[in-house]
Amino acid sequence: MAGHTFMQVTPLPLEQLPEWREDRATGRFHHRSGKFFTVEGLDVRRPGGPVPTWSQPIINQPETGVLGILLKRVGGMPYLLMQAKNEPGNPSGPQVSPTVQATRSNYTRVHQGLPVPYLEHFLDRRGRVLADVRQSEQGAWFYRKRNRNIVVEVGPHIEAVEGFRWLSLREVYELLAVPDLVNMDARTVLACLPVQAGAGGREGFAADLARSRDPRAGARHGLGEILSWLSDIRSTVEIHTRPSRLDLLRGWRRAEGRISHETGRFFDVIGVRVEACGREVAEWSQPMIAPVGTGLVAFLVRRIDGVLHALVHARVEPGYTDVVELAPTVQCTPGNYDHLPAAARPLLVDEVMAAPPHRIRYDTMLSEEGGRFYRARNRYVVVETDEDPLPGHPSFHWVALHQLDELLRHSYYLNVQARTLNACLHSLTHAREPVSAGAL
Amino acid sequence: MAGHTFMQVTPLPLEQLPEWREDRATGRFHHRSGKFFTVEGLDVRRPGGPVPTWSQPIINQPETGVLGILLKRVGGMPYLLMQAKNEPGNPSGPQVSPTVQATRSNYTRVHQGLPVPYLEHFLDRRGRVLADVRQSEQGAWFYRKRNRNIVVEVGPHIEAVEGFRWLSLREVYELLAVPDLVNMDARTVLACLPVQAGAGGREGFAADLARSRDPRAGARHGLGEILSWLSDIRSTVEIHTRPSRLDLLRGWRRAEGRISHETGRFFDVIGVRVEACGREVAEWSQPMIAPVGTGLVAFLVRRIDGVLHALVHARVEPGYTDVVELAPTVQCTPGNYDHLPAAARPLLVDEVMAAPPHRIRYDTMLSEEGGRFYRARNRYVVVETDEDPLPGHPSFHWVALHQLDELLRHSYYLNVQARTLNACLHSLTHAREPVSAGAL
Repeated sequence: MAGHTFMQVTPLPLEQLPEWREDRATGRFHHRSGKFFTVEGLDVRRPGGPVPTWSQPIINQPETGVLGILLKRVGGMPYLLMQAKNEPGNPSGPQVSPTVQATRSNYTRVHQGLPVPYLEHFLDRRGRVLADVRQSEQGAWFYRKRNRNIVVEVGPHIEAVEGFRWLSLREVYELLAVPDLVNMDARTVLACLPVQAGAGGREGFAADLARSRDPRAGARHGLGEILSWLSDIRSTVEIHTRPSRLDLLRGWRRAEGRISHETGRFFDVIGVRVEACGREVAEWSQPMIAPVGTGLVAFLVRRIDGVLHALVHARVEPGYTDVVELAPTVQCTPGNYDHLPAAARPLLVDEVMAAPPHRIRYDTMLSEEGGRFYRARNRYVVVETDEDPLPGHPSFHWVALHQLDELLRHSYYLNVQARTLNACLHSLTHAREPVSAGAL
Repeated sequence: MAGHTFMQVTPLPLEQLPEWREDRATGRFHHRSGKFFTVEGLDVRRPGGPVPTWSQPIINQPETGVLGILLKRVGGMPYLLMQAKNEPGNPSGPQVSPTVQATRSNYTRVHQGLPVPYLEHFLDRRGRVLADVRQSEQGAWFYRKRNRNIVVEVGPHIEAVEGFRWLSLREVYELLAVPDLVNMDARTVLACLPVQAGAGGREGFAADLARSRDPRAGARHGLGEILSWLSDIRSTVEIHTRPSRLDLLRGWRRAEGRISHETGRFFDVIGVRVEACGREVAEWSQPMIAPVGTGLVAFLVRRIDGVLHALVHARVEPGYTDVVELAPTVQCTPGNYDHLPAAARPLLVDEVMAAPPHRIRYDTMLSEEGGRFYRARNRYVVVETDEDPLPGHPSFHWVALHQLDELLRHSYYLNVQARTLNACLHSLTHAREPVSAGAL
C-alpha cells in the first residue's frame, strides 16, 4: 500500500513561489488563478480571554471539500475503500486516506488534473448514505473551513483501482495504532461513521467501549443539558475577528522567505515546491503552515455508572463557524508554555504527561492534513481515570461516548482533534490485540 | 396588556440621525459608541443561481441576543411570562413579547438604561431548561445574526412585574391568530419549545397535528436522509459574500435621506427618531430596514401515512451562517414579481394564493422584529393539500412535524420564517376553536 507515490518537497522562499502572488491592495497571499486558498492576516479580539487580542496569519479556503469513504459488506463484515495518498506536508510519505479527498477546485479540475476516481458515488449518493455531515477543521489555522464528511455503502461489485484497496474496518482501526499512517481526513470521516457492531464477545475496556456506544446507555448529563451548556458558552464568549494585512501583522515578522512569530513560537508560514509522480499534477508550489513543536491531544475518559464518558473542553478558536466547539480534554503544544510558570500551563497537561502506563488506552503520534500543514504532528492519547479532576469547571463537561456519536450527526459540535480521538476510541472496540504505546 | 408604552416614531433622513456616523474609510453606517449594529454593503456572488451577482445593504449585528421565556406550571398547565413591548417598527403598537428580549448591549447597559427584568433566570439558568438553542434571523437582511432562544421552567412563586403577565400557553397560542400581535422573537422561542401536551381529546386537524408531533410517528424520509440532503445542498451551492461600501453599492441610490434599490423594489434603509415612555431610554435615533410590499410565507402540509408533513424549501440567503436553511414552502414578496412573466415567479405562490378556504388551516398577518425592521409584514399561511405539487424537486422535501421539532434542538436548520410557521402549527393543536382566516 505504501510508497506508491514519489514526492519531492523543497523549501522555497514565499517570494519565489511561481504561482502565488501577494495582493498589494488587500495584503493577501493568493494563487494566480484566484482559486484554492489564500493566506491572510486576522486580528482577533477576545475580551475577557486569557489573551484579549492577537494577530495571526490564517488560511482562508471558502470552498467545501468532499471527504468520502465507500463501505461495502462481505459476509456481513464492513470493508472500506482506502487510498494511498501522499501530501507534501506528510512526515513520512503516503498515508491511508479516504476514497475521495477533494476540494471543489480538484473536482471541477481548476488545475486541469485527472478526474477524481469514485467521486460520483458521493456527489450522486449512489448507495446507502451512512453519514453525511459538514464539519470544521483546525480553527486556529483555517478560517471557517468546512468539509463534507460522507460514508456511502455500496454493493460488492465495486472494484479497487490502482492506488486503492478495500480494507476491513478492523484493519483500518488497527492501522490507527501505527504512527503517522492514517491521515486526518480519513480519521474525521471514521469518527462520523456510526457504530458498525455490537458489544458481543469482547472483554475489558473494549467491552466497556462497545456498551458505551449504545444510545440506550445512560449518561451523566442529558443531551439537552449538554446542548444548553454549549449554547450558553457560545452566547457568552465574545470573540471578534477582522481580516487584516499579512504584511503588517502585529507580532509577526517576515524573514528568510517565511513568516514567523517574533517569539519563534506557534507556527511559520513557509513556501514549498512539490514534484510528484502519480498525482493529478506533476509539479506545483504552495505556502504551508509549519507548526513549531509537537502537540499533545488527549481525552480523559472515565466510567460513570458503567458507561464511559469523555471529558470535553469547550474551546474557542478564531476560525470556528460558531465561536466554540467541543475539544479534547487537553489540546496544546506543551513547548509553547515551557518558559511560563506552571500556573499558566493549560489544565491537565501534566496529568496526561505523567499518566501511568496501565491507565493509557491509546497513545500514537498522528499527523494533520498534509496538504496545508507541513509536518504537523500531535501525540494523541486516551487516558482512563477514576476521578473527576475538575469537578464543576464551567468549560469542561463529561459526555457519554454514545452522546459523542449523536453530536457527530450534526455540524460543528466536535472539533477535528476530538473527532480523531473519537475514531481512535472506536478503533479500540474493534482491535484484536491490546494496543501498545506508540512513539514518544 | 396593550398600550402600556407610548412611542412616537418620526422619519428622519439618514444623514440627520444624531447618534449615527458614516465611516469614510469603510463606508459603514455605525453608532457613535461602536456598539449595537452597523449597516454595511454586501457584494454577493452566487454562480449558477437565478441571480448570479448582486449587491445590497445588510445589517451586521455580531453580538448574540437572549430571547427567553419563563414557563411555570399551575395545576399541571403551562403558563408563560410574556411582556407587552413596543418597538419603533411595529405596525400597530405594543406586541406580546418574550420575558426577555435583550442584546448584549442592552444587558451590559451600553446605553445606560434600566436593568433587564428576569434576565438572571436565563443567564444563570435558574430552573429547568426546556429549550436553549442559537438560531439565525432573516438572512436577507441580517449578516450572520444569531440569537439564543431559551425557555426556562421556574417554580410557581415568580410574580409578574408591571408590563409583564403570566398567560397560559393556550392563551398565547390563541393570540397567534390575532394579526400583528405576537412578535417575531416570541414566535421563534415558541417554535423551539418542545410539545407540552399529548393528543388526548382532540379531533380533526388538531388531533392529526398532535399525533404528528410524537417522535415515534413515522416519516416519509428518515432524519439521516434529510440531513444528508441538506449537507449535499450546503456543499454544492456556491455563495460568496464580501463586505463593500454602502455609499458605492451597485443598483442602489441614496436620495431623500434613504437608501433604495433603483427599481424601487426589495427594501429601503430609512432613519427614524424615537421618543418613548416606559422604556429604558426615552429618546434615540436609528436606521431601519423598511421592506417594500407585504410578504407571503406559507407551508404546504400533507398527511403521509397519517402523519402530517410540511414541504420545506432549502433556501439560500447571504446572511446565513451555513449557506442554506430550511424555509417555508413559499417565502417571497409577490409584488416583486408582478412585472415578470409567470415563469419567473417563485414556485407555488399561485397555489397558495388560490387555495380554497376549506384547505386553509392558518392565515394571519404577522410582523417581523420591530427593533430593526420598519413595518415588515408577512401573511403567514398553512395550507393542507392531498398532493405533492413538486414530486422529486431537488430543493424541496417533505419533513414530518416531529422531525421539525427534532431539528429545532440544533442551530441553523430552520429559518426564522419556518420557525414562525412551526409555532403557528403548534398553536393549532391547542386552540379551543377553529382559527378563522386572519387579515387580507
